[in-house]
Amino acid sequence: MPEVAIEEARRFMEESLQSVGTPAQQAKDHAALLLHADMTGHFSHGLNRLELYINDIRSGATDAKAQPVVLKQKGATAWVDGCDGLGATVGNFCMDLAIKKAKEVGVGWVAAKRCNHFGMAGWWAEKAKSEGLIGMAFTNTSPILVPTRAKQSALGTNPLAMSAPAKNGDFLSVDMASTAVAVGKIEVQIHKGEPIPDGWALGPDGKPTNDAQVAFKTGRLLPLGGFEQTSGYKGYGLSAMVEAFCSGLSGSNSTHNIRSWALKSDEGSPNLGQCFVAIDPECFAPCFGERMADCLQHWRNMEPVDPSLPVLAPGDKERINEEKTKKKGTITYAPNQILHCNELAKKLNIKPIQVL
Amino acid sequence: MPEVAIEEARRFMEESLQSVGTPAQQAKDHAALLLHADMTGHFSHGLNRLELYINDIRSGATDAKAQPVVLKQKGATAWVDGCDGLGATVGNFCMDLAIKKAKEVGVGWVAAKRCNHFGMAGWWAEKAKSEGLIGMAFTNTSPILVPTRAKQSALGTNPLAMSAPAKNGDFLSVDMASTAVAVGKIEVQIHKGEPIPDGWALGPDGKPTNDAQVAFKTGRLLPLGGFEQTSGYKGYGLSAMVEAFCSGLSGSNSTHNIRSWALKSDEGSPNLGQCFVAIDPECFAPCFGERMADCLQHWRNMEPVDPSLPVLAPGDKERINEEKTKKKGTITYAPNQILHCNELAKKLNIKPIQVL
Repeated sequence: MPEVAIEEARRFMEESLQSVGTPAQQAKDHAALLLHADMTGHFSHGLNRLELYINDIRSGATDAKAQPVVLKQKGATAWVDGCDGLGATVGNFCMDLAIKKAKEVGVGWVAAKRCNHFGMAGWWAEKAKSEGLIGMAFTNTSPILVPTRAKQSALGTNPLAMSAPAKNGDFLSVDMASTAVAVGKIEVQIHKGEPIPDGWALGPDGKPTNDAQVAFKTGRLLPLGGFEQTSGYKGYGLSAMVEAFCSGLSGSNSTHNIRSWALKSDEGSPNLGQCFVAIDPECFAPCFGERMADCLQHWRNMEPVDPSLPVLAPGDKERINEEKTKKKGTITYAPNQILHCNELAKKLNIKPIQVL
Repeated sequence: MPEVAIEEARRFMEESLQSVGTPAQQAKDHAALLLHADMTGHFSHGLNRLELYINDIRSGATDAKAQPVVLKQKGATAWVDGCDGLGATVGNFCMDLAIKKAKEVGVGWVAAKRCNHFGMAGWWAEKAKSEGLIGMAFTNTSPILVPTRAKQSALGTNPLAMSAPAKNGDFLSVDMASTAVAVGKIEVQIHKGEPIPDGWALGPDGKPTNDAQVAFKTGRLLPLGGFEQTSGYKGYGLSAMVEAFCSGLSGSNSTHNIRSWALKSDEGSPNLGQCFVAIDPECFAPCFGERMADCLQHWRNMEPVDPSLPVLAPGDKERINEEKTKKKGTITYAPNQILHCNELAKKLNIKPIQVL
């Protein structure tokens, strides 16, 4: 499998973005977001998506030079116009504002319209966590979730992310689509040439499918919980909650009006809605970090059913992957991924990605 | 099936609570909470639990006369000591405070320690919704959720509730345990003498069970999503998030230190942690209610797979049940429930519940 030095992957992402007119700082911020996904093992949300962002900039759907604007604010809240900026530009602007407000009044709650895809939701929640705060991030997406009992999709994967700091640098991190799985996981199965398990998606006949290509093309994912008898309506409810925080508060497109996110699209701005929250634990009972650390350790120390599969705290998998990647100094990509990158390098007239 | 007039069920609940020393207002508030559960069809959380609350008052675990106290506050936040008060007493105090703060600075975020069971989490979220705000409510509970890969329980059903107002009195309401199902649903299967479906719970051997009694006694519920391959770690993550908001912020017991909630217990105060949130949509883009109504209607108007099972918006099931109950004027209880009430009436020396 091809190994790419971390800094080379970063260089490739930054140069790709800059080659289509992204200012250096914005390119750096967006590359950091994508690189984090690859380093934590969420390859669907990293280099794999670079070309979609590039194409959105080229088509004018994304304005890589845009800076967000605050439209309205109060002590704990702000309404922001993302101005169709890059995901990382808007994410940094909004989460910085939420953090500032949390430090002032205890909570910052920021909702933005006219957003583009912001990568891993967890990245934004963890930004607040790094400041000693609880962070949350939400976004709506293109319609792909089938509401319980319905035939068609109407809601997005609408992810929900939350992160909380614990003692000695430990932390909790939850980052989940409200579908049983994120679309990226189906893409990964396609790249691997493998089927998808039961309970992930419906085919065009409205029946469950195991064909990753069919599931990807049909775009009808089951909500977390699956069918009604196993509480799939809870995943549907979570998705609806995220919708209220995103399009509801921001005035962006509601999911059922959002265009699909394709490799090539001429449908213009997706006008997604996003929501960023920061909460200061210092405003509540002392020793939040100690209590969180105690919970995390309690869970990790539990006896596992299978001794080869230890019990993890939410976020451990990603942290372990990131630590391993940093130690190794390289990221292992699928061979197809490298081929795609080299085609992209030709199109953009930049130096191809260097495989070790 | 026995029919009980709504006001008679309320009378019975209030008198039961007052007979063990609960002041009239607190008894009224707590009865309203339980009655709402029965009226919306969540019988597990209504009259079914009255005796548990009564016993907790008698044992001294609950101080029915207690009033909560604010320990610390800032613009958007408050840390509260629930002082072991009744669920409704603490819930009303905290949500009223969150609502007040949301009206002042846009968000109110209140965490309370030394709480008792507060009934349906959705009741508290809807309290904020009735004021034109988005509401959220969370509580930790006794350990019953098995973290992904673990053999034993460590987290609670840790419910998450959210409600948002829409145009013309319409609303969204999400109220869900982070387990595949709430314990109450297993209790209902026991009362019906019916088995539980796959994916709800593990038996003492660590394997899935369909025996409701075994599942109830063993107390090992699967998180929402079920096993790891169907994303059960997401339900585990949600439960951990609720834990951070509840015990983390408030300094209450963490779930793994909470005593079990049994019909009779001499273990004293459970010291639960609870969290109440209100957000003012007026602080964001205009026309929140219109956008929410559009989403709700879009989902309801979708073509269903089975024409006899229409697509519902989250919260519709409960609202429809409540409307039917109000129209009918009576609540239909299981015969066993009435027997239990009459035994309770004898113990408390109050008038038995009148069946029509």
